[in-house]
Formats: sequence, structure tokens, C-alpha cells
Amino acid sequence: VIPETLHPDAAAVADRVMSDRLWDRHMALARHGATADGGVGRPALSAEDAAARDELRGWAAALGLESSVDDIGNLFLRLAGGEADADPVLTGSHLDSQPTGGRFDGVYGVLAGLEAVEAIAAAGIRPRRSIDVVAWTNEEGGRFAPGMMGSAAFARARDLAEMRAVEDADGVSVAAALDALLAREAALPRRPLGFPAAAYIEAHIEQGPVLEAEGFAAGVVSGIQGKRTFQVTVDGEEAHAGTTPRGARKDALSAAVAMIGALERAMEEDGDEAVMFTIGRLSVAPNVPSVVPAEAVFSVDLRHPESEMLAALGDRVADICNNHRGPCVATVAELINAPSLAFPADMRSLIRAAADAVAVPTMDLISAAGHDARYLHQVCPAAMIFVPCHKGISHNPAESATADDLAAGAKVLTAALLTLADG
Amino acid sequence: VIPETLHPDAAAVADRVMSDRLWDRHMALARHGATADGGVGRPALSAEDAAARDELRGWAAALGLESSVDDIGNLFLRLAGGEADADPVLTGSHLDSQPTGGRFDGVYGVLAGLEAVEAIAAAGIRPRRSIDVVAWTNEEGGRFAPGMMGSAAFARARDLAEMRAVEDADGVSVAAALDALLAREAALPRRPLGFPAAAYIEAHIEQGPVLEAEGFAAGVVSGIQGKRTFQVTVDGEEAHAGTTPRGARKDALSAAVAMIGALERAMEEDGDEAVMFTIGRLSVAPNVPSVVPAEAVFSVDLRHPESEMLAALGDRVADICNNHRGPCVATVAELINAPSLAFPADMRSLIRAAADAVAVPTMDLISAAGHDARYLHQVCPAAMIFVPCHKGISHNPAESATADDLAAGAKVLTAALLTLADG
Repeated sequence: VIPETLHPDAAAVADRVMSDRLWDRHMALARHGATADGGVGRPALSAEDAAARDELRGWAAALGLESSVDDIGNLFLRLAGGEADADPVLTGSHLDSQPTGGRFDGVYGVLAGLEAVEAIAAAGIRPRRSIDVVAWTNEEGGRFAPGMMGSAAFARARDLAEMRAVEDADGVSVAAALDALLAREAALPRRPLGFPAAAYIEAHIEQGPVLEAEGFAAGVVSGIQGKRTFQVTVDGEEAHAGTTPRGARKDALSAAVAMIGALERAMEEDGDEAVMFTIGRLSVAPNVPSVVPAEAVFSVDLRHPESEMLAALGDRVADICNNHRGPCVATVAELINAPSLAFPADMRSLIRAAADAVAVPTMDLISAAGHDARYLHQVCPAAMIFVPCHKGISHNPAESATADDLAAGAKVLTAALLTLADG
Repeated sequence: VIPETLHPDAAAVADRVMSDRLWDRHMALARHGATADGGVGRPALSAEDAAARDELRGWAAALGLESSVDDIGNLFLRLAGGEADADPVLTGSHLDSQPTGGRFDGVYGVLAGLEAVEAIAAAGIRPRRSIDVVAWTNEEGGRFAPGMMGSAAFARARDLAEMRAVEDADGVSVAAALDALLAREAALPRRPLGFPAAAYIEAHIEQGPVLEAEGFAAGVVSGIQGKRTFQVTVDGEEAHAGTTPRGARKDALSAAVAMIGALERAMEEDGDEAVMFTIGRLSVAPNVPSVVPAEAVFSVDLRHPESEMLAALGDRVADICNNHRGPCVATVAELINAPSLAFPADMRSLIRAAADAVAVPTMDLISAAGHDARYLHQVCPAAMIFVPCHKGISHNPAESATADDLAAGAKVLTAALLTLADG
């Protein structure tokens, strides 16, 4: 189903990508959840997220695209194809950010997709297949963990009811926040959750330093490194900090600190620099200075490009925690176990051909971060295009990319999408 | 100024202490901030705190006591003495609790004081000095750290403006919460902050296991063990958990875990069981699973009955933190440096004589926990009476004491207060 040759007008249509427009739209969306330090804090299913969607739909409407949503809140902006029954081509990413995020992570994939369909529409071309630009719900998982809810639900990889039960730190459920968003967007057509797709391409900033250092404006993503995540709950007992002897304590934080220290040593002992190990979240209760902590809950985020190595390291987590729990009780729950994946060779060839046609030099590289493309890969041929981000800084207000690189990536995307949509 | 012999009616008046009334009032106040597990969560300057004060003032008004407040929100319930110019005798404790606190910590000292003046009033005795039953503001420090704000402000030991600037975890300042409380109680006379006092006695549950194990209904507190507290702030840099190599990270939580582990080892290396060392609070930012933590803030609570040992251990904290900060920046601020103290011998003798008169067997013991009496000790002769608490459990919903023990302690307090007030 994937064309072996590019659409004859691919380069000419891609040339209609407008760098300034694409940049200005990034800056416009960055106002929703803007932080004082120039970053973005736009939690999934928040008022800021809803406002960003509104602005995006406004641009889509001006282009004549039809907006629709599904039961997990994924937002689709459709450029209607000539054959209504042909499976559509999907492209997109996400609009939510980490609490201390930047202006490009996720947003770029959505806006590059919009830019591509705008270029195709401006050329007066109506491809055979429809093209849906998608904003997937809650990719980041910063508010509701774990993330990638929209793409996982679309791919039927995770259960909708379980996702709806997830609560944020304030006790607000996905169900409550999502239903409020859907009520706000009740005028939009509701699409079924998960429908046949011909292909999916996601454009994204690299979130690593390779493309910038090597001097390429775009990268052909070979695959996504594997990831396992855990939530460790340590139950102890609250007690008076001044009167309870050490031997009588069940100090949940002390046990958690021992576990984390042991996990760090275990993950580093082989000196394998490819191991990515992070404790990003640690919450203590009651969390006051003069009470021995009764509970500590922490996250474990473990990644490795080799699935076997990832499996071996991840399998040690529970034992290490239990060996260091002291007088407390440790509960280790695995949230995500995603092995490394490789995108189809014919999709990668198509991206390379598209880049050649628009004269953007590329290199192949693996994605160290997870993306919605992980789940789309389960249901249709998928690919990703990376563009450089300065010094690889991401999940940080200082995240930055150049207008030229963003436009170069969007041109590659345009040429590839047009080819797929007419195939 | 401290009488060498008991008031002649001390035993008879103390006999008017009513165990049931005292118990019922504990249960009544425990409804304000009651938790599902039978405990109490009543933060200082909260709506629950205000409601508990209302109920307490109602009982005081029925007794003919005059209520008044000062600029830090300390609440005074006065049994007027015969000589208006004589320095009053103070007794009391606090109404705020830890987030996962019990029904007796603090409340007992206030209600035992009220019970004592009720017994004195019921006997038709008007002592020479007034007796003020005091509820000191924010002893626990669970919401606004550090605690003991009311007694410290009264003793002029800490600056009111600095205390007012302290914020809780939601960013609400002491100033905002306190001014709201004072506005609510605007009808009460406003007393100056800190006035001459003839003496102070504080009754309190032991919060340790000694009295129960040794079989004494009350304890004469010899002094309070020293305490040093610190706040350690670790500044790192947020980064993507999947793409940022270990060597490029400034992981604030990882550094904090290394510091805490090293502090624990240092505090335990001498095997001195008298060392009380607690990390009760640890807060991480942005605290999401897939972002390398940019900031970690933790508390250090260190106590030892010997001031020299406390000084030596506390002086190591900053160095240990800096030695384990890795690529992060560590800022160590000392919040409290209170050496061990001994209450005056004549005050302790008075408590012992009062206990003998009401036939309550006592033993001497040190207070491992800090109390408002620490600050009152700086401005007038002070003493404390302990009553047993089950298994020493405190700062915990399971905190418990018996009605008989509470009444026994209140009788000792009554005999001692009457003697001081007529002295």
C-alpha cells in the first residue's frame, strides 16, 4: 500500500510550506500555558489545553478542514480526500506539555501536519485518501500518568475505563476532566475510537543532541527505544520525630531512599551509557518536618535501545526494592513494558525519498524518547521525522528549535503525506 | 516568687476536676478536623482550627472567663484574680495538630488548664493572680514551618514579620491566614504580644512510652531535649528522562537521595540510640515521572538530650550535604537551633508536691519532643506535667490516653496553679 515512488508534485507542493506561518503558530500556541521563564506548562485536559485546541480548530476551519473528536478526546482535523471510503492517512502528535515544558515538544508534529495539508490544499490538489491531522490526548503523562492515552486508546492497546479512572495530584480523574472537555466540544462530530488508517507519520523535535551536532536539518527515525516504568509504594508508619527510637520506626522515606540508592547503583554498575534511569517523581506523606513519613511513592523510568537489556534491567527492580524495604512494605507495580521497536523499512525509505526530493539532508537515528507513533505502529505502517532541537534540551523551558529546521521537516512531511494520500 | 508550700485547699480544689467532662471536651474538639481513621488533621490557622477555638471560647464564656487574642493569634481565657496588677499565671498548650495527628497532643494542655480554672472557680476561690489558659498558635509547624510560632512570638524569641511571611504548601502566607482568623475574632480584646507572667505550666501527653511502661499516672518533666532543624534545597536542572545521558544530568533528587543516605550513615555511625534524626519532608519539582528533577527540598530534624552532642552532629549537616551534591547546588539553611534545657528546680518541686497532695505517683523524665514551654522558659519560671500515652504513639491517628490519666494530670495541674496564683 506504500507507494514506491514519490507523488510527481511532491517537491512543488512541499515548497508551499511557509516557514513564518509555521513559526508564528508555534508562538501563538505557546501562549496557552505560557510560563514566566519562556516555557510552557499545559497539562492534558486542562483549560490551557482546551484553549490551544480552540485556536488550532480555528486555523483548521479557515482551511475548510472538518474537526472531530473521539471518546478519549483525540482531535482530528480532516482534509477530505477524493474517495470517502479509502482509509485515511494520519499525521500529528500532541498539544499537552510537561509542567516545565517548552514550545515545540508535541506541538510541532500537529502544526507541521497542519502546514502540510495547507500546502496540499493551496496547490489545489485533492488526494485520493483523506488526511487527518491529529492531536493525541495526554501524551506526556505529566498530569495523568502514564501518558500516551490518546494513541493507546486509538490503538486499543489500553483499556479506556482504566484510563478514565486515573487521577491527578489533586484527585481529579481523567473521566471528569475528559468529560468536561468533550462537553465543551459537544458541537463536534464524535468519531469511533480507533478506525482503519492507511499510514501514520509523526514529526517531532529530536529531544536529543545528535541532529544539531551532526548538522542535519531532519532525521529519519529508525525506531523507538524500549521503556519500562514502575510505581513503587512504600508503606511505613507515621511517628513523632522527637520521641520514637530508631528501632521502633517504620520510616517510609528512609526505605525509599535506600531503594533508590540501590537501584541507581544497580543500573550504573555495568557502565552502560545507554541505560536511561530516572526517578522523576517522589511523593511523601504526611510530608511534614517532625513526623516520621508513613508513605513514600516513587516512579521508576527505565529505557534502553536493546529490548533484551531492558528486560533484564527491569526485571531487577522489584527485587532491589524489596531487599531495601527494611521494616516497611514495598509494592512495585509495572505501568509500562514497551520493548524497542523498528519502523517499517518501506516507510523509512519513503521519508528518505521525500527528503531527497525537497533537498533536505537526513541521517537515520533512533528515538530515545517515547512518542504516540509507538502505538500507531501497532495498527498501521508508521514513521517519524525528527528535526534538531538546541543542545538536545527538552522537557525544559529552554527547549528551542529554528524556524528553518521546523520548515524543512514540514516539507519532508508534506512530500511524504501527499504520496501516501494518493497511493 | 514560687511558693514553697502548697495552697491549703489545693487537694480539695483539685478533687473538683471532673474526668468525664475533661474527656468529653477532648472528644468534642476532636470533631474539628476529624479524619476517617479516628485521628485529627487540624492545621494551624485553618477553618478547623478556628472552629475548635470557637468551641473552646464557648466553654470559657459559660465559666465567666474573658477571652482575648494577641497579634500572633494566641488565645487567652482569663480567670480574673483578685489583684488586677499582679502578673498572671499562664497554663496551656496548642490546638493545632499534625496532618495525621491524634486527639490529645496539645489539646490536653489547653483542656487541662480549662478544667483547673473550672475547679478553682467551682470552689468559689478567687486567687490573687489571674490565671490565663492559653492556646498557642501553630505549635506543630505541620502547615507553616517552623512551628511554635505563638510561644516564640510571645517570648520575643522570633520576629513576627518573618513568621508572617512563611507560606504553606499552597502558597498561603501566615499573614493571610492569621489576618483572616483575627478578623473573624475581631470582637475579642487584643492584648499586647508578650506580657509579664508569674509562671507557666504546660500539661501534655508524654509522646513516649516511659510513663505507661513504668506505671506512673504523671511525670515531672526535667527539661526538653535539644533540637536543630534545617531546610536543604538542592537545585539541579529539568531534562528529558529518555534522552538525556547520565553525565549531562543535574538530577536534584538523585543528589538529595545521596545526601540523605550519607546523613543517615553519619548520624547512626556511633550507635548512639539517643540521636533522633528524621527527614520528614521531601518535595520534588516538577515531580513527574519522565522529567529529571530540577529541585528537591528536604527537612532535617535532629535531636539529642545532650547539647554538646547535638551541636557536634548538627554542625556536620551542611558539609555532608555539600559533599554529596554532585553537579547540583545545595543550600543548607538552619531553621532552629535550640539546645537542651532544664526547668527550674523550684518549679519541679512544686509539681512534685502538688502530685503528692492529690495522691498521684510521679517520676521525673526528660521531654524528647519540643513544646511551647521551651519558649515560655525564656521569660518566666516554667514547668511541664506529662501523662501517659499508649505505647508512646503520637503524631498518629492511633494516639490515645485514658480518661483517668488525663484527670490525674489535671489534678496535679490544678493544685500547682492554685498555689502559684495565690503566691
